[in-house]
Amino acid sequence: MKFYDCATAPSPRRVRIFIAEKGLDIPVEQVDLGTGAQMSAAFRAKNPRCTVPVLELDDGSCLGESVAICDYLEALFPEPALFGRTPKEHALTLMWTHWVEDLGFAAVAEVFRNSAKGFKGRALPGPENLEQIPALVERGRQRIDFFYRFLDQALADRAYLIGEVYTFADISALVVVEFAQRVKLAMPESCTTLAEWYRRVAARPATRV
Amino acid sequence: MKFYDCATAPSPRRVRIFIAEKGLDIPVEQVDLGTGAQMSAAFRAKNPRCTVPVLELDDGSCLGESVAICDYLEALFPEPALFGRTPKEHALTLMWTHWVEDLGFAAVAEVFRNSAKGFKGRALPGPENLEQIPALVERGRQRIDFFYRFLDQALADRAYLIGEVYTFADISALVVVEFAQRVKLAMPESCTTLAEWYRRVAARPATRV
Repeated sequence: MKFYDCATAPSPRRVRIFIAEKGLDIPVEQVDLGTGAQMSAAFRAKNPRCTVPVLELDDGSCLGESVAICDYLEALFPEPALFGRTPKEHALTLMWTHWVEDLGFAAVAEVFRNSAKGFKGRALPGPENLEQIPALVERGRQRIDFFYRFLDQALADRAYLIGEVYTFADISALVVVEFAQRVKLAMPESCTTLAEWYRRVAARPATRV
Repeated sequence: MKFYDCATAPSPRRVRIFIAEKGLDIPVEQVDLGTGAQMSAAFRAKNPRCTVPVLELDDGSCLGESVAICDYLEALFPEPALFGRTPKEHALTLMWTHWVEDLGFAAVAEVFRNSAKGFKGRALPGPENLEQIPALVERGRQRIDFFYRFLDQALADRAYLIGEVYTFADISALVVVEFAQRVKLAMPESCTTLAEWYRRVAARPATRV
């Protein structure tokens, strides 16, 4: 297997943390998004969406999406379990991962890609060139605030997003919370439960990747 | 179990088709999105995102997201398999489902919710009230066109999105293609491969739900 990564991008970091939690040693190749290496014909053949992360399997086929990559690695290397251990826990992990992406990741990306000068004409990832929409910056800020409060409330009665077990959903939320800090959207001070969860999750050795 | 549905909304239709393919008989309750029934305290306790579909489990807990619901049903009722039969097929099903949501569903929703008068001040699903952004309508149209061409190209060498097996990813794509027709965005005439896939998938008895 080979893992196509980009050390500065949030999406592949989810997979890096997942790989570190599993203790796996998978060869890594950095893809330089700054120079548009993800648009090359060679990379496009691996992932027509022209995004990282990508996991190249031993048969040469590729997975070009974080949840799919981690689902595959979970099936091959079940321990430690990071999608729970029952059908219900597995489904809750997918649900929370999706919610974190929809409510959190999409909102931060909306602020980031529609405000950064470097993304002029590149407001969405992928091969299409789309203009920035300034109104999305303000809307994204509102959405991130909602995301923080949503997680804070959800965590009121449990240690991790799906219950008492740490999963890929927590990894996803951690990466989004740190991505939000890059666009200067700090957690509201009132979100003390979320802040406590964050300290606990961020202290795991696997997050230092 | 109980399935909270809304007969006119695209997301729960994915689950309805999935349930029909499995031949399951799950009690259904319609949630009237038109009168805001999804915002009631009772429904919010089942799904804090205030969206359909929701699957209520026998222990009273709830799953409020389509992929999670179908993942759960697949674990309980494995036949016929709708997430493939190998770790690679399972991961590819999740990848394609994600791509269909990101490239297709999000784009159609962008057009629909930012143009329809009924969604004024309700540009995104959920409990938050957000204003429409007219620029997203034109951007959404561009994105749907890209989505159609992306699928058309992907299907050039295979019968279904992940290969030779029909999966939940095809169900998701079918629902998005029909949702696009509701916002008057027909498939480009050049997408003959996609049109052929569509005829084949839409002809399945389970899609008549």
